[in-house]
Amino acid sequence: MASEPAGDPTVAEISEGEVLRAILARTAPAAATVIGPGDDAAVIAAASGAVVATTDTLVEGPDFRTAWSSGFDLGWKAAAVNLADVAAMGAAPTALLVALAVPRSTRLSYITDMADGFREACAALAPGCAVVGGDLTVSDVLTVAVTALGDLRGLAPVTRSGARVGDAVALAGEMGEAATGLALLFGRFRDGEHAVPVDRSALDARERRALDAQLRPAPPVGLGPVAAAAGATAMMDVSDGLALDATRLARASAVTIELDLSALGAEPRRALAGGEDHALLATFPDGILPPGFRRIGTVLAAGEHPLMCGGEPVDPSGWDPYRDWDATVA
Amino acid sequence: MASEPAGDPTVAEISEGEVLRAILARTAPAAATVIGPGDDAAVIAAASGAVVATTDTLVEGPDFRTAWSSGFDLGWKAAAVNLADVAAMGAAPTALLVALAVPRSTRLSYITDMADGFREACAALAPGCAVVGGDLTVSDVLTVAVTALGDLRGLAPVTRSGARVGDAVALAGEMGEAATGLALLFGRFRDGEHAVPVDRSALDARERRALDAQLRPAPPVGLGPVAAAAGATAMMDVSDGLALDATRLARASAVTIELDLSALGAEPRRALAGGEDHALLATFPDGILPPGFRRIGTVLAAGEHPLMCGGEPVDPSGWDPYRDWDATVA
Repeated sequence: MASEPAGDPTVAEISEGEVLRAILARTAPAAATVIGPGDDAAVIAAASGAVVATTDTLVEGPDFRTAWSSGFDLGWKAAAVNLADVAAMGAAPTALLVALAVPRSTRLSYITDMADGFREACAALAPGCAVVGGDLTVSDVLTVAVTALGDLRGLAPVTRSGARVGDAVALAGEMGEAATGLALLFGRFRDGEHAVPVDRSALDARERRALDAQLRPAPPVGLGPVAAAAGATAMMDVSDGLALDATRLARASAVTIELDLSALGAEPRRALAGGEDHALLATFPDGILPPGFRRIGTVLAAGEHPLMCGGEPVDPSGWDPYRDWDATVA
Repeated sequence: MASEPAGDPTVAEISEGEVLRAILARTAPAAATVIGPGDDAAVIAAASGAVVATTDTLVEGPDFRTAWSSGFDLGWKAAAVNLADVAAMGAAPTALLVALAVPRSTRLSYITDMADGFREACAALAPGCAVVGGDLTVSDVLTVAVTALGDLRGLAPVTRSGARVGDAVALAGEMGEAATGLALLFGRFRDGEHAVPVDRSALDARERRALDAQLRPAPPVGLGPVAAAAGATAMMDVSDGLALDATRLARASAVTIELDLSALGAEPRRALAGGEDHALLATFPDGILPPGFRRIGTVLAAGEHPLMCGGEPVDPSGWDPYRDWDATVA
């Protein structure tokens, strides 16, 4: 773009203002904007008189590697994981704020690719939502802290604690795909201790799908408000694996959840354990299941174990990013 | 506290859940809370139908050193700088979201001290505001990304661009104190290249005041809504030095600002250049100056230079955290 310095300078070679201008040139306006980027703060419409707010951070090492994630991938994922949390309350995302800490050696193109990733993730997953503000600083560790805001559009928020005995347990989204993608990265794209760039041509269609689920997740953000409008009694984002997150929902609601083994696919262990899917887990009064959700179980009165499957208790050990990411690959 | 592990474990020695429980035990509820911490997202009342939102990050190195800042100091400052940005729009802060990335060697006590700092800064500067959500991850670089939300209470937001010819230019807060405090830290509390803990007994009262302005700034957050209600035409947070920020306000409003040399105190150069004061700079129709603001200049028609003082143009070079903090002290 004409407004950018020639070549591909590092952050250390240009001013903060130049970086910010390049980012803003790629930022779409948010539909709910009252005051956009450039002042001390943004002002976002909250028509229903309340705002949904959540924050989630991606740190290089525990959460991603630049050898595996392009700037676009990173921006997309940082947006998607936060949009999913807003959706899990039953709300429609309205705005993102991005706090970016980057090494001085970071190329401007990596940052503008991130801005593209934020924009395109919003366009695909939550149309009308966009980055409305942010902060840029330098750090030895690339860190992307995103805050997402959302509007409930007159509906009550759907928490984790409202599941009732007899409700259907339903899921929208993937089970285990993102974890399979992560296993591919660790298994196939490293050289000893070092991550190496992904060669997509070495992957078959199913593997590519899993890789995309890991690097550019597409959670069913639009189904959050759909579930709320349909009368979901409880809902949450499944980010730490179905086993752990269903256990959390069951505990918050003081019930037991019985999962149907037959609903967990050909690899139930993978479906239960895999993290980072950002599916929506919800409970609905029996007989109500909005489009996009599939039934995977039933809410029972609280028993000895919060989560059961096929008549057996399920170990709630789920996804631990420190354990699964931080292992041996630099 | 009984809920905490014995001794003072590091983050690596305890679970994320234990750290979060220790933080939440120290977190006061926010007055505007609809849904508080513990679900996928918080829900905060936005009575006026819009929400003010801003984010600002503190990174160890460019922004602070743990040798100089206690956990309490760091939490306080991370809250205060964001509260000031909300106030600068004319809004009352309602909620903070905290994205914390900490080294594994971080002691739990440092993190709980931060939680105390957040709580006490809110209590002192923006009563009713509190931390409503957050995220905890590990990183080699201690990073605190805070998002602050606020409510306009029916008033229009005050931007940087509304100053009109003939308006009074006014300031609430300090000029140059925080920069003096920073110079003290670099000048008196290091051993060669290394920051060493502050010995307050080696400081006189004036020096202690400057140190506090740097480590625990107390911006006039409550005066933001006061200025908006009084009819401020433009307002901004002075974080990069009066010279640079007044230049920004003048440019955004397409006017020239003439500062009164006599209003800049005994050290006008320090008043103009010092960063991190988080004073409120505002313009008011002539004759209106709400309590807490003092007149420091006048809005003129746009001239050759956006900022003048004593008949001379003022160099807008202000505060650059990379330059001033990142120098030679580890």
